[in-house]
Amino acid sequence: MKSISMSAAQIAEIVKGEIIGDASRIVTGVAGIKEAAPEQLSFVGSRKYEALLKDAGAGIILICPDLAKFAKPESTLIVCKNVDHAFTVIAAMYADEAPAFTPGVHPSAVVSPEAKLGSNVSINANAVIEAGAEIGDNTVIGAGCYIGHDAKIGADSLLYPNVTVMYRCLVGRKAVIHPGVVIGGDGFGFVPGPQGLVKVPQTGIVQIDDDVEIGANTTIDRARFGRTWVKSNVKIDNHVMIAHNVVIGESSIIVAQAGIAGSSELGRGVILAAKAGVNGHITLGDGVQVAGASGVLRSVPAGQTVIGAPAESQRDFMGRLALPGRFEKLSKKFAALQAEVEALKAQLEADK
Amino acid sequence: MKSISMSAAQIAEIVKGEIIGDASRIVTGVAGIKEAAPEQLSFVGSRKYEALLKDAGAGIILICPDLAKFAKPESTLIVCKNVDHAFTVIAAMYADEAPAFTPGVHPSAVVSPEAKLGSNVSINANAVIEAGAEIGDNTVIGAGCYIGHDAKIGADSLLYPNVTVMYRCLVGRKAVIHPGVVIGGDGFGFVPGPQGLVKVPQTGIVQIDDDVEIGANTTIDRARFGRTWVKSNVKIDNHVMIAHNVVIGESSIIVAQAGIAGSSELGRGVILAAKAGVNGHITLGDGVQVAGASGVLRSVPAGQTVIGAPAESQRDFMGRLALPGRFEKLSKKFAALQAEVEALKAQLEADK
Amino acid sequence: MKSISMSAAQIAEIVKGEIIGDASRIVTGVAGIKEAAPEQLSFVGSRKYEALLKDAGAGIILICPDLAKFAKPESTLIVCKNVDHAFTVIAAMYADEAPAFTPGVHPSAVVSPEAKLGSNVSINANAVIEAGAEIGDNTVIGAGCYIGHDAKIGADSLLYPNVTVMYRCLVGRKAVIHPGVVIGGDGFGFVPGPQGLVKVPQTGIVQIDDDVEIGANTTIDRARFGRTWVKSNVKIDNHVMIAHNVVIGESSIIVAQAGIAGSSELGRGVILAAKAGVNGHITLGDGVQVAGASGVLRSVPAGQTVIGAPAESQRDFMGRLALPGRFEKLSKKFAALQAEVEALKAQLEADK
Repeated sequence: MKSISMSAAQIAEIVKGEIIGDASRIVTGVAGIKEAAPEQLSFVGSRKYEALLKDAGAGIILICPDLAKFAKPESTLIVCKNVDHAFTVIAAMYADEAPAFTPGVHPSAVVSPEAKLGSNVSINANAVIEAGAEIGDNTVIGAGCYIGHDAKIGADSLLYPNVTVMYRCLVGRKAVIHPGVVIGGDGFGFVPGPQGLVKVPQTGIVQIDDDVEIGANTTIDRARFGRTWVKSNVKIDNHVMIAHNVVIGESSIIVAQAGIAGSSELGRGVILAAKAGVNGHITLGDGVQVAGASGVLRSVPAGQTVIGAPAESQRDFMGRLALPGRFEKLSKKFAALQAEVEALKAQLEADK
Repeated sequence: MKSISMSAAQIAEIVKGEIIGDASRIVTGVAGIKEAAPEQLSFVGSRKYEALLKDAGAGIILICPDLAKFAKPESTLIVCKNVDHAFTVIAAMYADEAPAFTPGVHPSAVVSPEAKLGSNVSINANAVIEAGAEIGDNTVIGAGCYIGHDAKIGADSLLYPNVTVMYRCLVGRKAVIHPGVVIGGDGFGFVPGPQGLVKVPQTGIVQIDDDVEIGANTTIDRARFGRTWVKSNVKIDNHVMIAHNVVIGESSIIVAQAGIAGSSELGRGVILAAKAGVNGHITLGDGVQVAGASGVLRSVPAGQTVIGAPAESQRDFMGRLALPGRFEKLSKKFAALQAEVEALKAQLEADK
Repeated sequence: MKSISMSAAQIAEIVKGEIIGDASRIVTGVAGIKEAAPEQLSFVGSRKYEALLKDAGAGIILICPDLAKFAKPESTLIVCKNVDHAFTVIAAMYADEAPAFTPGVHPSAVVSPEAKLGSNVSINANAVIEAGAEIGDNTVIGAGCYIGHDAKIGADSLLYPNVTVMYRCLVGRKAVIHPGVVIGGDGFGFVPGPQGLVKVPQTGIVQIDDDVEIGANTTIDRARFGRTWVKSNVKIDNHVMIAHNVVIGESSIIVAQAGIAGSSELGRGVILAAKAGVNGHITLGDGVQVAGASGVLRSVPAGQTVIGAPAESQRDFMGRLALPGRFEKLSKKFAALQAEVEALKAQLEADK
């Protein structure tokens, strides 16, 4: 981390926050709220971390309005609404830069004379770029990457080492693609034929729009026809599987080990938590949220949150979870009623 | 897509279908039923897509017998039984060819003088082939692939870039292996010893028979002894994990993110849907089908379908799903009975 | 497998076991109990395999004390307590050696002049080692591996082909890392900003301590600050996802396709079975065991076993599984009680 001295006043100005405490307080770095030392800035943006405030050693704390009252009186606070964003902005100023990639084409890279390289690209050791491929200005192609025939990578993109982009696939501008990602493997399609399973040709492409990040070892398959389409500003974590002809709407977030089966369409701002699965040929409306490890079998209207396998509403899911306890209670009440009926029968017998 | 003019009559002859409508109707391409234009062939092979028929713009539609009556009267139909297969055959005629791989050994490839290359192979840029490895006739080894010592790849196979086949493993003829696949990593075995966990040597191999396809980033581990064995015509999707000593029977289909634990055996034609897990040391009989995200703990006899975690019969699973609704009904009936008993008690009291 | 003649007496001495039967009996290899022939050693260390003893053809069987009585009288047995460990020790003596890696730097490898190589290293074909990286003595860097700027790999480690270790990450001594592993991709963090999702800088590293094994295609993300930390003797299977700032305690075992979300801490000797998921920001105490495909939402105290999604105690999980059967019984008893109440009402009516 870089060591830069910043005062509470300077930080408050950048994040447009309000200081409670000593505006001249200086920090030289940032850290999480558990670890932060007196010379460091930290943050508490959620009630979850409220309990950590009483032992917090941070010099300055970015904090949301409703939690400020729980901080120690001697703490210097900067109150702002979007604490996570504010901290991210300041932390980025302290962040060590990642190693720079040398511009130019490394002598060990194998670049087809029929490929087209933009200005200021960095093509690293042992990368392979096939005929017809195009690499945009300022883009970095990491060591050992493979860029297939006629594939296009937009400007200002960063492909870390050992990424594979298959033929004809399109990646937009400002992409960040982590190692081991495979874009454009064949979609998975076979039909029973007279002599066994017959491969369904996968003749489409993958299209990734601008500002997309893709985590390590994620795979995005090429379409059967047309395109598998990841729209702009989508963020995808590691080990995600996106099948052929899937469409993912703008600014959606797909967390690790999630999977989306063929031809399903996600709207804008959809969130799939870790390990979630989405069935094929269904639609998730804008803003749908799917809880971790859930399995979505049917289309979900915009704005809904679903959970469970098969996925249902939170209310139904909580009801299902509560069932054993309610069953015990009903069983006890049943035994009591049974006893009452026995007593009635005895009484009737006695009354005869 | 290639532009080829074909008439309904020509197509019907190839797929052995029966024309309803204009036999001279011409198409020049293929597309899905939602997108298809008047100059394109499409298909509807399942009741799921019946609703799309009324807006279908396709020039010709391959259709199954029971759905023909739902098509618009002006549609030209070709009725055939196995619509998916028929469409696959025609679509393959229109498919753009994937880029051809140049035969020969790329100068940047590192091929051991002790490796044995068949005729007409294509060894691409930066591929590494170790001593004792054998590559069959007409086989393509993609850029950046690693073929370990004494590994053998059969004829007419296609290894896309960045595939790893470790030492002594065997891949059959006509394999299609997508980027990032790892064949022959060590099986996962450790036993507690006096000084901590001790690695169990994994001394076997992986054997892949003919006509197998393996999706991107899938891993198949080498056996402890003997072989991990994927039999002929098996189709494996992306991100699948196949542990040591697993046996997968002919023509089985393993969908994305499924996993099979050590030493389990799958019969012929088994289907594991996405994210399914199979416990170690169990057997799934021929034709067993496992629903998505299910966890199979015990052996399953041939022909059965199982679902859930732990996996059970569809009937039991549906029963479990229906439980909350049935519980609500029983609770209401219980309350009613309780009221009746109260009434009886009151009546008895009054009768005294 | 190597062919080495060993007598029961020799084997018993090595594993410190007690012979029942012919101490001069000779074997020349090892195999699993189902396949073992008269010239082979095998083992039965668990009641699960007891049934296989009556047909066992092995020349000598390593066996645990309580199972010896089930073996055929003509079998030569070596009774010992930790059968799995004993067999692993003997099997290792018979194991074919994996191909040796030639020491030195392959001419096609790209090693920065500012990298530091220990003695007796083997840097294989097309590997890339960036400036500032350090490779310990006797360590093998497989073909196509990428070792980023300032990354350090300890002595006596084995990186199989196509492994990616990103900048500044640390790998300890005696590591075994399988193909396709990615160490040090960015942690997954984005916050909503005024113009869409903003990337949270991931400025930390991954630290892997000594004696760690990591399975094919597993990914371990770099920390937001500080380190993602895998402590010594941890064993990780294939396709595992370890998110930023996770800490995994010594000798823990993480089975295939499991995932651990950001900032969670696992104690010593934790076991995550296959496909298990662990929520972010929670703690699993020493020795916690998580069943396959379970989803752990809340912290778990040391020593507990949890199962299910969301994870609960085995008792609660079994109770949940048993619910449909108990519900059927209660429904029947309810119907019977209803009939009794009807009878009572009829009787009261008749008595009037």
